[in-house]
Amino acid sequence: MHILIIGAAGMVGRKLTAKLVTDGIGGRPAEKLTLVDVVIPDSPAGFSGAVSAHEMDISTPGEAEKLIATRPDVIFHLAAIVSGEAELDFDKGYRINLDGTRYLFDAIRLANGEDGYKPRVVFTSSIAVVGAPLPLSIPDDFHLTPLTSYGTQKAISELLLADYSRRGFFDGIGIRLPTVCIRPGKPNKAASGFFSNILREPLIGEEAILPVPLDVRHWHASPRSAVGFLIHAAEIDLDRVGPRRSLSMPGVSATVGEQIEALRRAAGEKAVKLIRHEPNEMIMKMVAGWAPGFEARRATELGFTAEKNFDEIIRVHIEDELGGKLG
Amino acid sequence: MHILIIGAAGMVGRKLTAKLVTDGIGGRPAEKLTLVDVVIPDSPAGFSGAVSAHEMDISTPGEAEKLIATRPDVIFHLAAIVSGEAELDFDKGYRINLDGTRYLFDAIRLANGEDGYKPRVVFTSSIAVVGAPLPLSIPDDFHLTPLTSYGTQKAISELLLADYSRRGFFDGIGIRLPTVCIRPGKPNKAASGFFSNILREPLIGEEAILPVPLDVRHWHASPRSAVGFLIHAAEIDLDRVGPRRSLSMPGVSATVGEQIEALRRAAGEKAVKLIRHEPNEMIMKMVAGWAPGFEARRATELGFTAEKNFDEIIRVHIEDELGGKLG
Repeated sequence: MHILIIGAAGMVGRKLTAKLVTDGIGGRPAEKLTLVDVVIPDSPAGFSGAVSAHEMDISTPGEAEKLIATRPDVIFHLAAIVSGEAELDFDKGYRINLDGTRYLFDAIRLANGEDGYKPRVVFTSSIAVVGAPLPLSIPDDFHLTPLTSYGTQKAISELLLADYSRRGFFDGIGIRLPTVCIRPGKPNKAASGFFSNILREPLIGEEAILPVPLDVRHWHASPRSAVGFLIHAAEIDLDRVGPRRSLSMPGVSATVGEQIEALRRAAGEKAVKLIRHEPNEMIMKMVAGWAPGFEARRATELGFTAEKNFDEIIRVHIEDELGGKLG
Repeated sequence: MHILIIGAAGMVGRKLTAKLVTDGIGGRPAEKLTLVDVVIPDSPAGFSGAVSAHEMDISTPGEAEKLIATRPDVIFHLAAIVSGEAELDFDKGYRINLDGTRYLFDAIRLANGEDGYKPRVVFTSSIAVVGAPLPLSIPDDFHLTPLTSYGTQKAISELLLADYSRRGFFDGIGIRLPTVCIRPGKPNKAASGFFSNILREPLIGEEAILPVPLDVRHWHASPRSAVGFLIHAAEIDLDRVGPRRSLSMPGVSATVGEQIEALRRAAGEKAVKLIRHEPNEMIMKMVAGWAPGFEARRATELGFTAEKNFDEIIRVHIEDELGGKLG
């Protein structure tokens, strides 16, 4: 099986690559990996198959065609400008998050017209496709009401994915990722970064800044769950999914205060004391429109699973990133 | 006031132009009209202001900039490839209905960046942005689930309209038109054309073909109401509308059988006998995914009004198209 990952150098992309190397998809091994990002992705350790890694901007016309010429069986499209950056740089956000996605979909469509090529396409959408006012637990049939350019670009991509799938150009499925928490590594430009920072940094004895009030409620899943969603999406029988191809994933609905209580249980008061409150107007305004939680009934029925609470999310982080114990 | 109508040569565009000539917008007269379509629009009769009519394809890069250079105060964007044609010609549908709309929005955005230009933009969306399974009366917060490429293109345009408005590039409002019935003139390529044909043709003693069963229920408003929606959208205080800028318009929910009963009341059994049942698989399949009706609560609260039943829709047609009486 030949698997293409666009956005392979990102945090989720790297974890997905590692998981595919060990597990493959649906019991079939990954024989060939094509890894693409705006910086050249690392080749995975311990992989006996072929790896082809490329530095590429898929928003450059003609680039997607080159990838599709190799006819991958499964395509994971993870590449995106994150929410904060897409809000600050209008042109870049639309170019990467909308045009890039459309170039990819059209390259597949043209290949489909040539020889009937019809890959599985797993697209990472986002809970940012909905925006306030929102119910506490958002139903699967809630309308698309993004309040950011990033959410708009993801919502548009969901619509394209559904139409191109309906037309038979590819077998597409969209995964609305909860905010991935705890993100390992350094902070990125995502406006949602603080949800991870306030746990990750104190867990290793570092300070973190909290830019919003304690009662902000949001929707989370671990990086391990995110990778699980993507692989399950690549394996699932799409006849069971039907024409509504983008699914809100399960997750944990928690306030920042509840996150901090879980941190206290895991690492004590000294960890909690490392969180510094520093209100940020721009982030507060963005977060006010974000989703507090989802019913995620369809995804749950279809076998997607996530953590049940923040204690579990912290435990996963300690296992996967900190060698199983706090220092 | 300078008003630009893109898609001015179409049925709704011509009626809108005529209405603007007599009534203006919000008590202000139309001093200048710029009329654009893929065929050159007729200049309106009895207009003392300036008219500038252009044959133009707004999906050609650079064309929208020329229109925006004249800085119209209000822009009506009606231009579209209709549903049946967008389904048959994938490229053309996306080019006109998506790229054309985006070129227009981006031309305004760039002008906004130059000198703060911020026109009112009234975009004609469609009830095709939702698709089956649907409730009998679709709420305002029902999600976007188009089952046609046309509906997908309209849904994407709604999302762009909301984001560009939120960003402050223009004051946009999207109007989800019910199926406009009774359309005057000759049948077009819209898959929904038969809803009009089965009334319009028998009312003047001509045969018409009914391609679907009598129990098909759908959502309608007259051309007069459609023009009323557009003008009200140009006048309305957008602070009352909020960030969810596309509104499902009020209308009449009726089965084909109920339409025919109204025809019988208006024109007798001899008219009804002119309808020939000729099932069409492609049309039946498309129509099966269409909306049976909308709650249209927000639009109604905001003062948009339509007919109450099909007797009224037929009466409007007789008044506006047949000189007030049947021949």
